[in-house]
Amino acid sequence: MSTSDSPVTRIMLAVNESTIRGYPHASISSRGAFEWTLQKIVRSNASGFKLLFLHVQVPDEDGFDDMDSIYASPEDFKNMKNRDRARGLHLLEFFVTRCHEIGVACESWIKKGDPKEVICLEVKRIQPDLLVLGSRGLGPFQRVFVGTVSEFCVKHAECPVVTIKRRSDETPQDPVDD
Amino acid sequence: MSTSDSPVTRIMLAVNESTIRGYPHASISSRGAFEWTLQKIVRSNASGFKLLFLHVQVPDEDGFDDMDSIYASPEDFKNMKNRDRARGLHLLEFFVTRCHEIGVACESWIKKGDPKEVICLEVKRIQPDLLVLGSRGLGPFQRVFVGTVSEFCVKHAECPVVTIKRRSDETPQDPVDD
Repeated sequence: MSTSDSPVTRIMLAVNESTIRGYPHASISSRGAFEWTLQKIVRSNASGFKLLFLHVQVPDEDGFDDMDSIYASPEDFKNMKNRDRARGLHLLEFFVTRCHEIGVACESWIKKGDPKEVICLEVKRIQPDLLVLGSRGLGPFQRVFVGTVSEFCVKHAECPVVTIKRRSDETPQDPVDD
Repeated sequence: MSTSDSPVTRIMLAVNESTIRGYPHASISSRGAFEWTLQKIVRSNASGFKLLFLHVQVPDEDGFDDMDSIYASPEDFKNMKNRDRARGLHLLEFFVTRCHEIGVACESWIKKGDPKEVICLEVKRIQPDLLVLGSRGLGPFQRVFVGTVSEFCVKHAECPVVTIKRRSDETPQDPVDD
């Protein structure tokens, strides 16, 4: 069997920002899922794969930080939107830069909405061969208060899904953080 | 980054017999999961992967077929056990032969017990990088009467798990069959 001339394997990764730092670093679980994909799946066969990075921004995710902000003009809202956009681009740049270093083809884009629903819609639209999701690997008790994107996508995404749990030695002080 | 000298990616596949034919052919979903792994993950990089085939035999899975059998001596039981063993070996031979043709390293073995529990125990023992499971992709109504190994393993196996649903054009007349 020859598989070398078959179309590239398209792997979608849903990535998000860390909740820990104030700056748009990739979350621990996003980075873990990305590294797992490179080390265990892509390996040295960079030309056989294309990575598709989707970052879903929750419209009000910065609501809490912005409690002290004052919005007095349309310009203020525009600035806020530009800042969100800059944070999202900075996040994607991290992954795209790594892919370029390794020589694996990639694409990345930003959507707004409820992450679990947007991810499933994008899977339907893009039809990747595999969806890789990072997960904090929380216990059932912690999950109640957080809700998990990965559980929803495993059930509803119309492609194979693999969830990469965060390594226990990378769990931050508050495991709900990421 | 160089990943070419990292240890091979060890992928465990749990495989079972078809429920349709009387002879120990691989089930549709097992074959689908195997082909997906070769085409989408291993691709042309055979030396980067090792496939680990686990076949779990349910101790009484042939009970119904054997309703008309008469067991009159210890020899009868021994014959039955030998037949089970032969069926399991025949099943594994299919996968091992394909791997040899392609040049991808593999191992295969048989265990007895409840498939979902044995698979999770073997994952704990073997620690593969990924567990690939075929699934009939039944709806919630059909699932109630069948129970799904894949749902259990996605929750409980101590490694990343990916479930490959059977293609709709491969669904047999009775979708509970496989």
